[in-house]
Amino acid sequence: MPDPTAEPLGVAVIGYSFMGRAHSNAWRNVAAFYPDVPPVRMRALVGRDGARVARAAAELGWDSSVTDWRSVLEREDIDIVDVCTPGHLHAEVALAALAAGKHVLVEKPLANSVAECEQLVTAAAAATGRALLGFNYRRVPALALARGLVAEGRIGTVQQVRLSYLQDWLSDPGAPMTWRLRRETAGSGVLGDLGSHAVDQLHYLLGEHVTRASGTLRTFVPERPGPDGTEAVTVDDAAWATLHTASGVVASLEVSRVATGRKNALTVEVYGTTGSLSFDLERLNELVLTQTGDPRTQAAGTILVTEPEHPYVDAWWPAGHVLGWDHTFTSQAADFLRAIATGDPAHASFEDGLAVQRVLEAVETSHGRGGALTETGN
Amino acid sequence: MPDPTAEPLGVAVIGYSFMGRAHSNAWRNVAAFYPDVPPVRMRALVGRDGARVARAAAELGWDSSVTDWRSVLEREDIDIVDVCTPGHLHAEVALAALAAGKHVLVEKPLANSVAECEQLVTAAAAATGRALLGFNYRRVPALALARGLVAEGRIGTVQQVRLSYLQDWLSDPGAPMTWRLRRETAGSGVLGDLGSHAVDQLHYLLGEHVTRASGTLRTFVPERPGPDGTEAVTVDDAAWATLHTASGVVASLEVSRVATGRKNALTVEVYGTTGSLSFDLERLNELVLTQTGDPRTQAAGTILVTEPEHPYVDAWWPAGHVLGWDHTFTSQAADFLRAIATGDPAHASFEDGLAVQRVLEAVETSHGRGGALTETGN
Amino acid sequence: MPDPTAEPLGVAVIGYSFMGRAHSNAWRNVAAFYPDVPPVRMRALVGRDGARVARAAAELGWDSSVTDWRSVLEREDIDIVDVCTPGHLHAEVALAALAAGKHVLVEKPLANSVAECEQLVTAAAAATGRALLGFNYRRVPALALARGLVAEGRIGTVQQVRLSYLQDWLSDPGAPMTWRLRRETAGSGVLGDLGSHAVDQLHYLLGEHVTRASGTLRTFVPERPGPDGTEAVTVDDAAWATLHTASGVVASLEVSRVATGRKNALTVEVYGTTGSLSFDLERLNELVLTQTGDPRTQAAGTILVTEPEHPYVDAWWPAGHVLGWDHTFTSQAADFLRAIATGDPAHASFEDGLAVQRVLEAVETSHGRGGALTETGN
Amino acid sequence: MPDPTAEPLGVAVIGYSFMGRAHSNAWRNVAAFYPDVPPVRMRALVGRDGARVARAAAELGWDSSVTDWRSVLEREDIDIVDVCTPGHLHAEVALAALAAGKHVLVEKPLANSVAECEQLVTAAAAATGRALLGFNYRRVPALALARGLVAEGRIGTVQQVRLSYLQDWLSDPGAPMTWRLRRETAGSGVLGDLGSHAVDQLHYLLGEHVTRASGTLRTFVPERPGPDGTEAVTVDDAAWATLHTASGVVASLEVSRVATGRKNALTVEVYGTTGSLSFDLERLNELVLTQTGDPRTQAAGTILVTEPEHPYVDAWWPAGHVLGWDHTFTSQAADFLRAIATGDPAHASFEDGLAVQRVLEAVETSHGRGGALTETGN
Repeated sequence: MPDPTAEPLGVAVIGYSFMGRAHSNAWRNVAAFYPDVPPVRMRALVGRDGARVARAAAELGWDSSVTDWRSVLEREDIDIVDVCTPGHLHAEVALAALAAGKHVLVEKPLANSVAECEQLVTAAAAATGRALLGFNYRRVPALALARGLVAEGRIGTVQQVRLSYLQDWLSDPGAPMTWRLRRETAGSGVLGDLGSHAVDQLHYLLGEHVTRASGTLRTFVPERPGPDGTEAVTVDDAAWATLHTASGVVASLEVSRVATGRKNALTVEVYGTTGSLSFDLERLNELVLTQTGDPRTQAAGTILVTEPEHPYVDAWWPAGHVLGWDHTFTSQAADFLRAIATGDPAHASFEDGLAVQRVLEAVETSHGRGGALTETGN
Repeated sequence: MPDPTAEPLGVAVIGYSFMGRAHSNAWRNVAAFYPDVPPVRMRALVGRDGARVARAAAELGWDSSVTDWRSVLEREDIDIVDVCTPGHLHAEVALAALAAGKHVLVEKPLANSVAECEQLVTAAAAATGRALLGFNYRRVPALALARGLVAEGRIGTVQQVRLSYLQDWLSDPGAPMTWRLRRETAGSGVLGDLGSHAVDQLHYLLGEHVTRASGTLRTFVPERPGPDGTEAVTVDDAAWATLHTASGVVASLEVSRVATGRKNALTVEVYGTTGSLSFDLERLNELVLTQTGDPRTQAAGTILVTEPEHPYVDAWWPAGHVLGWDHTFTSQAADFLRAIATGDPAHASFEDGLAVQRVLEAVETSHGRGGALTETGN
Repeated sequence: MPDPTAEPLGVAVIGYSFMGRAHSNAWRNVAAFYPDVPPVRMRALVGRDGARVARAAAELGWDSSVTDWRSVLEREDIDIVDVCTPGHLHAEVALAALAAGKHVLVEKPLANSVAECEQLVTAAAAATGRALLGFNYRRVPALALARGLVAEGRIGTVQQVRLSYLQDWLSDPGAPMTWRLRRETAGSGVLGDLGSHAVDQLHYLLGEHVTRASGTLRTFVPERPGPDGTEAVTVDDAAWATLHTASGVVASLEVSRVATGRKNALTVEVYGTTGSLSFDLERLNELVLTQTGDPRTQAAGTILVTEPEHPYVDAWWPAGHVLGWDHTFTSQAADFLRAIATGDPAHASFEDGLAVQRVLEAVETSHGRGGALTETGN
Repeated sequence: MPDPTAEPLGVAVIGYSFMGRAHSNAWRNVAAFYPDVPPVRMRALVGRDGARVARAAAELGWDSSVTDWRSVLEREDIDIVDVCTPGHLHAEVALAALAAGKHVLVEKPLANSVAECEQLVTAAAAATGRALLGFNYRRVPALALARGLVAEGRIGTVQQVRLSYLQDWLSDPGAPMTWRLRRETAGSGVLGDLGSHAVDQLHYLLGEHVTRASGTLRTFVPERPGPDGTEAVTVDDAAWATLHTASGVVASLEVSRVATGRKNALTVEVYGTTGSLSFDLERLNELVLTQTGDPRTQAAGTILVTEPEHPYVDAWWPAGHVLGWDHTFTSQAADFLRAIATGDPAHASFEDGLAVQRVLEAVETSHGRGGALTETGN
């Protein structure tokens, strides 16, 4: 139980579109579900367009809105800076916030290049504030349960993993050009956007990193209609990789934006010597566990991950009341606040973000080398 | 292993439409999958239309075809009479066959009335031949497994059961009149046709009978286009019942021919004090088992019932190779032949058929009494 | 867009356990997701235990806590009274709040008897404030979509409906006595608790009421261990009913607290002449739609109800990001606020609550009459 | 309808273990379900062990058993030679049978090397008899339906395909050595055994071939207990590949014998510009079809592929009665007999078998080259 007389921790979120909204929701609700963590005060929402950020701040429950993100670094009443900008700005903002002594939460990806990620890791190690990387799917109860079951040896020694993250908003070749399809604005295509989540899950579930990777990228629709006529798509629509860990696990990875009918299908299958696990984000509250044993009753067991014994669930509703996508951010905020209060480690760390970025770059390198196996540096 | 010098048992099947075809398939294949049972010889297929039955006999692998069913009762080379006629003829044929000393297999339902069923039970008890009632779903491996699991106490004491059997070929109010919708030809509607399977499964899975029942019938479409203009439908399109067993189990039953999208959905859910089972005939190779225990891993476990350890499966293909609907008849034939050879009990017995018919009539009686609870006589 | 200069509507919630928490969550979040509705201010959380309600108020984001519910009726800064007390207190509180001119939201059930419900309907009709009954599942996007599809005729004329609501917290006969198992404190058993949701869904989906019902109740475990030794259970563990609407639809209803493995399984299947719908609350984001047509491609189609075109979804996250149980309360609060602002009708109305209560009482009456069909009065 | 006065075609099957049994089942049943094709007579079952093959022949319905496979090539009463030997003997037997003027059915794989496959293609082109390669999954109704839907453009232009074939009989590192794990007896590991089915499905569904491939093989357990102590496993336990077709489709392939909990899971997902299809052999009677359109009702539609309008189904049972694995062989036999009677093309052709073998060898070559993209020669 936090000290009720303590000042709440002041929070600023930089960015107010999709991710800024999801993070605002987390800060607004964390105290209600996690009363044991330090209280927070939603001090400032930051955005470039003064009128729009002011309106968003009012709707989302912020005390104020700000247009200059650097100004919040100077404020004494702001303890936590939560970076929800586009990925290519993560490094600049997070480095400055760490330098200013703030606790820093960065929405994934950590940054768009290994070089930037390395800088951020170094800065976090030297900083007085805590650093957290927001791979929110680590707080999906079913995936946290999966990690626990793997760690306990419930499925034996893991040998093979299947990862996919499939969406379909580019299935239609006539779908228009967007900034997400230009390398200069997006940094990368589906490999970075969705593949990063999948690779982080692999690291999270196994507790070890990918050391070698081979892969292929494909842009199925090389040109799309833009505002000024046909324009070249300069990022990938889909990617495939084979990933090898130090201990010998082999994981396949497939990510796509043209998988018609799949809306947000992060799927994970983990095969061990005595069992297996499978998960699909479109059924966020379920985990399928198979364990070997009596062949008469061996089964693919669908666990409804809504019991108080399951990770994070006890904070929420009674058994059987399913959670949604946004709850993961609230639990993430709680974990971060607890880490700030206790000094205990928190994940995903910036090192975790660097490890993911190394894998993504190795896949791209492999693609350039005709699919040849490539060291990740992890 | 049967004595290879023994004469094979001669078989005649009466009827060559849907059920006659399914039973012919069983006799044609039983030796290949169950080499331990007495061999059979497919002597005669019986039907009224000489040309059509001759052609069917040739296709289905019979030695001969016959138009007078009584003639096969007199033949010494015929040991088994398999009755696949319409239900209202079951009693007459089966009684004559038993009187002639034949082993008799009757396709479900045993007969269309309790009175006829009682006659058949009496005759079977006095007969020298063996009698078997063909509730083929007792040979679905998943349902036989379910029965075993219930008997072993794997789900504790059963308290509540949900049964449904849903089809949709009458969903369209414009679907034409058929003989199945006239009481004089069909005997009953969906309650008798599909409800009989469901009630037999209840008896089979629990090992006890329904003693009291209440129920409702409904004909959603009271008139349908017939060959001579609009005609009254005189049987039920759907029925609902609440069934009580001697030990206190309550089962709900719902059967329908207007359940759009359900093609052949016999579903069974059995809830016990420490577990539950569920089954859907449209996924014939699967059984879902839940067992209480560690709440972290309690799951609805889908068993793919294709392992050699599962009932009947060892006779067929290696693990993972799914079976179909018709395999149940072949396994039923094998069980019957084994019972003939050993003298051991075989099920479903004619008593089992009588017990089902009593429940169906109690539901009809209850409907006539405004839904009031009615004794079945079991 | 609401007038930004307007005073926000002041809200008080009476009760702070499970439902009070769920409603508090709704009021805390409604502005963030529904910026078009009038703003609210969370003025007071009401409870009997001063220390505990004070702490809950702090956690849940309330301005203050109050121990005397009558005091909030006198406050000018409170416009909306949200009644989350146990059901037997609903009538008293809601009647007083309506009399005081407040807008009143009552958590389901409206009240524990038809007589009380009738009083509330009368009072609501005469009141200056708006009245809403909180059947939150009306705001499950998949169920709201289902209602829309039925209304548009996408599945033709509805003939048959299957409803169940299954839980399992009483499966174990050794589970202890609680206030929920005593008639004097709980009012009723599973029929009232879960059956009310199912019956309201039936009314909601069909747009018509149940006029006749027959049913059965059962207490599987008549005595349970209490604090002072064995105690009689005086409410039902399970119930079954057959429900008939004015237009001729027949619905089956099965509710249970002993359905081992089912945690919160409200299932709805609606069969029409040209299609069907099915839903399971444990997969809250999915709706299964079947439509007749080309038999080659007729399918049970699982819709992931997370598109902006789906009801309520546009207020939340981009396509493919699943919602949870609690989001329904926030959407309900938004609908209520919009109704207050516009004067348009809002549902569920108190009449809707009365209609449900009539059905539940008819089922109980039918049970007492041996299952005989009983008029509901709707 | 075949000429009833014609002599039936005489058949011999070479081999009587798993595949010999499955093919015998097909010949025994083909006339019953496909009365329009030429009748056959089961003349001879061939095996090396005289006593065992004699017993198998008796059980499986053969007229006789033979120990010298060459002798059946000389018999005038044998028209069809069905090769169910181990794969490394396929070429020798099939070449001799073609040279003898027989119609030849070869169980997959066509042969164990591209060189042998090429010989067989040449021989088949020159032969007077018909040649068919038994990729039985082409006769799974759901997959035949999938091919039809793709060909009709129901899912638009195919862009991406996901293929897997997962089993688990080697999950346990302690599972013993068998002949299947030695290269000299098995030819290859899981890539050849299961990958061949998956690659053939890809060719079948798309109507085009894989022209380039990259891949990886892995033997997770390099040594297993053998009869004479620990022995090296010389084939792969799992394999991964990325396959490219001439038109630009990219398919991923994953095959494994260590995928704990997967018994016989051939899964196929086909993503087109306006729809997608998915299939799992463990649910053989189902095909999932998604088609873009109204976003409110876009759905993953599970088709129960048991309607008379579906491929092959009309030959079997009424709608809703599911088929099993073995029915595919009977339908394959019917297609072969029809091709013999009509002279029309039949598939899979020996060319189809060669095309598959080329892909498998390209994957092995790629693995040896560190995963580099490799031409298949198709």
